[in-house]
Amino acid sequence: MATKILGVCGSLRKQSFNMMALKAAQQLVPADTTLDIYEIVGLPLFNQDEEKNPTPKVTDFKAKIRAADAILFATPEYNYSIPGVLKNAIDVASRPYGDSAWKDKPVAMIGASVGVLGTARAQYHLRQSFVFLNMYPINNPEVFIRECANKFDAAGNLTDETAKGIIKTMLQNLVTHTRKLKAA
Amino acid sequence: MATKILGVCGSLRKQSFNMMALKAAQQLVPADTTLDIYEIVGLPLFNQDEEKNPTPKVTDFKAKIRAADAILFATPEYNYSIPGVLKNAIDVASRPYGDSAWKDKPVAMIGASVGVLGTARAQYHLRQSFVFLNMYPINNPEVFIRECANKFDAAGNLTDETAKGIIKTMLQNLVTHTRKLKAA
Amino acid sequence: MATKILGVCGSLRKQSFNMMALKAAQQLVPADTTLDIYEIVGLPLFNQDEEKNPTPKVTDFKAKIRAADAILFATPEYNYSIPGVLKNAIDVASRPYGDSAWKDKPVAMIGASVGVLGTARAQYHLRQSFVFLNMYPINNPEVFIRECANKFDAAGNLTDETAKGIIKTMLQNLVTHTRKLKAA
Amino acid sequence: MATKILGVCGSLRKQSFNMMALKAAQQLVPADTTLDIYEIVGLPLFNQDEEKNPTPKVTDFKAKIRAADAILFATPEYNYSIPGVLKNAIDVASRPYGDSAWKDKPVAMIGASVGVLGTARAQYHLRQSFVFLNMYPINNPEVFIRECANKFDAAGNLTDETAKGIIKTMLQNLVTHTRKLKAA
Repeated sequence: MATKILGVCGSLRKQSFNMMALKAAQQLVPADTTLDIYEIVGLPLFNQDEEKNPTPKVTDFKAKIRAADAILFATPEYNYSIPGVLKNAIDVASRPYGDSAWKDKPVAMIGASVGVLGTARAQYHLRQSFVFLNMYPINNPEVFIRECANKFDAAGNLTDETAKGIIKTMLQNLVTHTRKLKAA
Repeated sequence: MATKILGVCGSLRKQSFNMMALKAAQQLVPADTTLDIYEIVGLPLFNQDEEKNPTPKVTDFKAKIRAADAILFATPEYNYSIPGVLKNAIDVASRPYGDSAWKDKPVAMIGASVGVLGTARAQYHLRQSFVFLNMYPINNPEVFIRECANKFDAAGNLTDETAKGIIKTMLQNLVTHTRKLKAA
Repeated sequence: MATKILGVCGSLRKQSFNMMALKAAQQLVPADTTLDIYEIVGLPLFNQDEEKNPTPKVTDFKAKIRAADAILFATPEYNYSIPGVLKNAIDVASRPYGDSAWKDKPVAMIGASVGVLGTARAQYHLRQSFVFLNMYPINNPEVFIRECANKFDAAGNLTDETAKGIIKTMLQNLVTHTRKLKAA
Repeated sequence: MATKILGVCGSLRKQSFNMMALKAAQQLVPADTTLDIYEIVGLPLFNQDEEKNPTPKVTDFKAKIRAADAILFATPEYNYSIPGVLKNAIDVASRPYGDSAWKDKPVAMIGASVGVLGTARAQYHLRQSFVFLNMYPINNPEVFIRECANKFDAAGNLTDETAKGIIKTMLQNLVTHTRKLKAA
């Protein structure tokens, strides 16, 4: 049976390296696996007063998450943590209390940055959120695409073979992990 | 000379305990100190493509931060980390690169939650952001208003004397810390 | 088939609340489950120059870890992080590179403190170590035995029924998680 | 007046890259500044039952810390966190409660690793400990000596000019920060 991964990118800009990395991942999925990308632009800033009247976009986002077997976040790092834009998307889909769409989902992360840490700090903060969200991250390989500016070509294709190999292994591990958790 | 603190609350809901705590703090400032609250509702979700064309709200927010001597964040905790709404406000005012409004600001935090940790996890993530933002947090006292539902009255006033005492000490320490950093 | 849990306490003092909590956990294991406690006193401070000549204690510790199906850490919190004593025990058994005893082990944590956070900060730092160690922690329930001084009787028995209930659920979840990972 | 920095290295092995980095830092201190290195080998594993009967080594360590104006930690990273050996040294000198030697000290960190993150994860965990210890870390520059195996010569000298420049700036900032906190 096919494994369906939902990809979510934490950057809204058009030439986002993280979106490019997510698109590269689409070309690297194992057999019997799909990776669809959900665009989070248009999600509202979370306000608990409104959580019981979700916008159509919020309802759609939660449905897409629920329909997926696993989640793949592509995250920039802003100010040594998760981008507010991505954290807000996570918050929106985690509410109201008791109705989180993320519950029990296997999850993995990729991150690209022009700096040398490759969004590691953001990824460890995401891992702490997964504890509360009751999501199940894979441990390795971690995907830190460091000094990424010259690892993509002008058309936005990931050209770094090392990075591609790590993403491929990560996706394989995510699928194995997902099947293991489902089978049990 | 008076010390001007700018308070920023990370929740948008009307009956926010964190906003109530911030308003309580306004009544507890030391002599020669003011605490103004900036409402972050209306700030856009950060998009790097737009960062050089800030909305009037963004420009106003950055000006208010720059005019302050110190910052006080009141933060809820969502999914064991900083609320996306608050992190987004921080991100927006930190950009474009080289033009962050937060640079060099002394800072402190308060947090109220109905749970038992009082937003501690969100506050440690904020501290990591302060490293990059080059902000200077006080070390203590930490203000974790735990199990807060019965620490405020129906009108939204903080009635817990222990919490008030801790906030008062925190504000005094923030002012001392601010004057020390300015004098040097 | 029985599930064998190995308990490791991160405090060396005789009247350790964490050791008391670990002993309480022994009384609360599910059917077909054993919880043995390994005393880490006597492990050497880690020195990479000596890692290929382990002391008998180190060899024994690693063998006991390998023989276990799952690990339960009872951790104090020192200086807002993992006690050096516990982290050192983890380091010692993780070396030499490629010969870690912790690899692939399901894991859970309990912590007791006289303060209000119940060693939460130490536990999140442990979770980050689990990523590298390739251990698989359960997400919940988290066991934070806060303000613990009056939750044990003079003989060292845990008397707090709420804490006992949470430990019992945690152990059940750890066993279920362990069987799931084994079966797959 | 001269600024006295005490350097503490978190690795016990003879050919420690972190010790080499600390020795390199000794050659890079600003005018009117000394950097003495304290060897932590011989400190006991912390046991609260013994904390009121410190060994001579513990007493000496605490005296040396107290005599210093600022602290510089050179930290490896073990299992994505602070080495147990270093954390234990910090714990030992922080006790008994109310008699910590670290209180109010300005502090900075350097770290060398053969991997690509340069001990960043260990350094952020140390920063969390500094909150409780009431130490005052500088924010930047952070010193992550990544892929360090070829940045030192056979005699143990740091030969990487970029790393040397960053260490020099870090030391200058630590001295400025120390004088600022003292003057105030």
